[in-house]
Amino acid sequence: MCSDMSDTVEILDTTLRDGAQGKGIAFSVQDKLAVVRALDELGVAWIEAGNPGSNPKDMEFFRLASSLSLETAKLCAFGSTRKKGVKAPEDPQIQSLLEAETEAVVIFGKSWDLHVTEVLRVTREENIAMIAETVGFLRDQGKRVLYDAEHFFDGWQANPEYALSTLKAALEAGAERIVLCDTNGGAFPDTVAAAVQSVIEKLGLPKPACDDRISVAKGASAGIHAHNDAAFASANTVMAVKAGCRHVQGTLVGFGERCGNTPLAAVIPSIELKLGLPCLPPGRLRRISKITWQVAEIANVAVPDSMPYVGANAFAHKAGMHTDGILKVRESFEHIDPIAVGNDRHFLMSEVGGRSAIAERAKKIEPSITRDHPVTLALADKLKTLEAEGWQFEGADASFEIMVRRELGRYRPLFKIEAYRVVSEHPTSAVLACSHAWVKVLVDGQEEIAAAEGDGPVNALDGALRRALKHFYPELEKVRLADYKVRVIDGNAATAAKVRVLIESTDGQGNWSTVGVSEDIIDASRSALVDSIEYKLIRDIERRFKAYL
Amino acid sequence: MCSDMSDTVEILDTTLRDGAQGKGIAFSVQDKLAVVRALDELGVAWIEAGNPGSNPKDMEFFRLASSLSLETAKLCAFGSTRKKGVKAPEDPQIQSLLEAETEAVVIFGKSWDLHVTEVLRVTREENIAMIAETVGFLRDQGKRVLYDAEHFFDGWQANPEYALSTLKAALEAGAERIVLCDTNGGAFPDTVAAAVQSVIEKLGLPKPACDDRISVAKGASAGIHAHNDAAFASANTVMAVKAGCRHVQGTLVGFGERCGNTPLAAVIPSIELKLGLPCLPPGRLRRISKITWQVAEIANVAVPDSMPYVGANAFAHKAGMHTDGILKVRESFEHIDPIAVGNDRHFLMSEVGGRSAIAERAKKIEPSITRDHPVTLALADKLKTLEAEGWQFEGADASFEIMVRRELGRYRPLFKIEAYRVVSEHPTSAVLACSHAWVKVLVDGQEEIAAAEGDGPVNALDGALRRALKHFYPELEKVRLADYKVRVIDGNAATAAKVRVLIESTDGQGNWSTVGVSEDIIDASRSALVDSIEYKLIRDIERRFKAYL
Repeated sequence: MCSDMSDTVEILDTTLRDGAQGKGIAFSVQDKLAVVRALDELGVAWIEAGNPGSNPKDMEFFRLASSLSLETAKLCAFGSTRKKGVKAPEDPQIQSLLEAETEAVVIFGKSWDLHVTEVLRVTREENIAMIAETVGFLRDQGKRVLYDAEHFFDGWQANPEYALSTLKAALEAGAERIVLCDTNGGAFPDTVAAAVQSVIEKLGLPKPACDDRISVAKGASAGIHAHNDAAFASANTVMAVKAGCRHVQGTLVGFGERCGNTPLAAVIPSIELKLGLPCLPPGRLRRISKITWQVAEIANVAVPDSMPYVGANAFAHKAGMHTDGILKVRESFEHIDPIAVGNDRHFLMSEVGGRSAIAERAKKIEPSITRDHPVTLALADKLKTLEAEGWQFEGADASFEIMVRRELGRYRPLFKIEAYRVVSEHPTSAVLACSHAWVKVLVDGQEEIAAAEGDGPVNALDGALRRALKHFYPELEKVRLADYKVRVIDGNAATAAKVRVLIESTDGQGNWSTVGVSEDIIDASRSALVDSIEYKLIRDIERRFKAYL
Repeated sequence: MCSDMSDTVEILDTTLRDGAQGKGIAFSVQDKLAVVRALDELGVAWIEAGNPGSNPKDMEFFRLASSLSLETAKLCAFGSTRKKGVKAPEDPQIQSLLEAETEAVVIFGKSWDLHVTEVLRVTREENIAMIAETVGFLRDQGKRVLYDAEHFFDGWQANPEYALSTLKAALEAGAERIVLCDTNGGAFPDTVAAAVQSVIEKLGLPKPACDDRISVAKGASAGIHAHNDAAFASANTVMAVKAGCRHVQGTLVGFGERCGNTPLAAVIPSIELKLGLPCLPPGRLRRISKITWQVAEIANVAVPDSMPYVGANAFAHKAGMHTDGILKVRESFEHIDPIAVGNDRHFLMSEVGGRSAIAERAKKIEPSITRDHPVTLALADKLKTLEAEGWQFEGADASFEIMVRRELGRYRPLFKIEAYRVVSEHPTSAVLACSHAWVKVLVDGQEEIAAAEGDGPVNALDGALRRALKHFYPELEKVRLADYKVRVIDGNAATAAKVRVLIESTDGQGNWSTVGVSEDIIDASRSALVDSIEYKLIRDIERRFKAYL
């Protein structure tokens, strides 16, 4: 373990670039901004945020992103070396990198001669020139340059001398990170470790402080970028760090082409907790579970339950013997303490699981609640039943709070939906949208009915419900939905499967999230909408009438 | 690479024992028999099939399993060393291992002194006696014994001498495999490799043939059993094999407590293809994708799309540059040929995917299409426009094919939805489900109207549409939806945002996927349903009337 705290590992997250190459991953510009905010909250050093030369939508994002004020993270744009036979300043792809106006640019180039001659179809010399001129031009324009050596390990096996000469070209032209990429993801951990050691040696790159040499923060250093095609992405990354890399690229959840990139959420804890090398600012590692879930949620993808460190099951114990062992000695069946990564221990076959977390949350409403309070026990039971039915309160704090209030007896419905009808039809009439709805509500003994049209049935229902309620609660005027997500829970039952709807609402002052589950998407949405409106009303009551409560 | 073909790696699959400890994994006795048959078809050497001492249902399974005639696999029962203070022959748990009537028994014992004194709460000497007597008794009863050294790597770090003495006890008592377990899953690949080497040396176990020593099949040998808590299970397993282990334990799909066991489907190809050591009988590796899917299906769990070697995306290429590269030189973006593991290459259709991928797919309908064909150019344009509107064809092959047919002029609508109405209402009447729908279709000049109730509006619409069309196309009887996914495209526009619906359909012979996008979820679902039905009809027409076309 390296004890010198000045020795750190720099993290580059490429969820928005390499991650977006993963099947089924697509980010809107708003999604991208949300991912950037989340990664900054985690505390990564770099966010590789897009490829403006190949994707015009990325340029719009960089324009908007420049107004974000980030705490730790810097954005970088990603692009390739110049085209063959074109001067770097005249290559429109390189122009677009400058237009992104980021502090740094990541440039990838070819290190495997097979790719040079058979894919790019240029001479080995021209490839070297393409690397040197591109890096040099960007440095002249005042950019910091990180260099990604694509297919480095394959190139290193095929023709080590040539592979090394491509790195030298980038280094001498001014690149400050030389990142060795296992682009095809088939390299073995021992191969990677040996190659990293050799490259650092041969390029004269600084060795990390734990080798009692100079610290890597000064000057250029070596980095690693791995893919998971042989299930070795995490091992290759950590072995590369042990061999001297101090720059690590990956995607937080592991999104990426084919089998994905190095899942940063699974390797940062190993590097920090087991190698003793900080990757994030102090105290941030405890946010990693929450933020990984957030980023996955933005992509509308579930974090795999079995994901190391941050998965829902990462510390879930099923075997009775294991539970028993853990209760005697924590380390007996846990390689680390889940608190270190902000995750929770669960005992699947017992009721001990999750109570501390529940009590922690319930305290916000009733400070006297403890881990062994009857309300905590009742909530733990209820949660277990609801989760088995497909509910999830991870991203739905407001719904959870309403459930706690119900259990505490500190809840009374503020309105009731007596009836509704939502219709979607085709062809549409000239005077009515495809979807329309009416809703009848009962508030304090008074009835009200209202109708609305909408883009889709949920939008129509939402409109009609708010109209009916505004009559009684004019403050609802300011509320609007900020986000709406649908997840099919058991895909295999097809359209009759359950759906979980997550709604984020805002009143301009704050945001809150609610959840609904049903076999009927309309009914699930209604449930989440009702929670959302009630939560807003309860908050307003607390604010305005606190003195009386 | 070891070229001596007599040097092989023995595979033990523990899906039915350690795998069943995974959250959400539960096998009926029938399921277990199906898993055994599938694993035998793959060609593993051992199937650890249950723990008869702790689970009475497992005993019933062993009774039934004895009548299976297996080709390559042998069953083994799993249990622990005798209880403290009891003689092995009198321990009911050990009796139940004998009653399972398997050729071999796997016995696990403690190698970490922390576990001995703090969890088992016995002396170090008593633990050694428990190991020796249990193994010895089972050998006396004519059983072959494989010994699992639980927490070996933690024990090796804490007290190497003691850890080694537990192995010696098992070996001297007659165990023929000494399996080093990383029970907590936190060990690093270099630690594992060094420990394995050292243990083989110190125990005088035979080294594998590639070290020019005796082959491992004779006499006792070392094995590895890893868990994935630090994302190193696959790397630890393969590094252990490189260090001399010739017995590998894991679960085919990776099921198991917490983050899972070593996923055998992800390591067997690495060992066979990259280390050159056979694990399965000749020719069987090509079955591994299919059988992994089968076993997952039995457990009612999906194989992760990004799973190395066998996942649906393991050879799916999205970036245009990658597609382009692959078409020039296969190895340029693939670490192995997917055929070797019975998987397929896919080019995902996306705006970044490029013309080569489009042409590749269009060729299936019209072989003369090239990258520069006007139809390819038109499709590339169309794709770009549609993707900007939120469409995505990468998981929707059938919708893409229909689009290609349209562009080629080889398409004519097979039916038309003239009108529909979907209603969701609350409260429900006593005689009608919350959601119900009617649909009127026009086929070849004839109209038909049908109605259906459903769990949710989409289910109702689907039911009504199929009923109306079955009148004309009875073959639709066999079609059912296999999966249904909803993605809100720009969440921030809230319930008025666009939704993308992905549908997977099956007719028992094959699966196909379609997509629909709209601001209205009903309309998006309708669009995906129409594509799904048309695709099925077109395929049937091709099959039945090919001669006339």
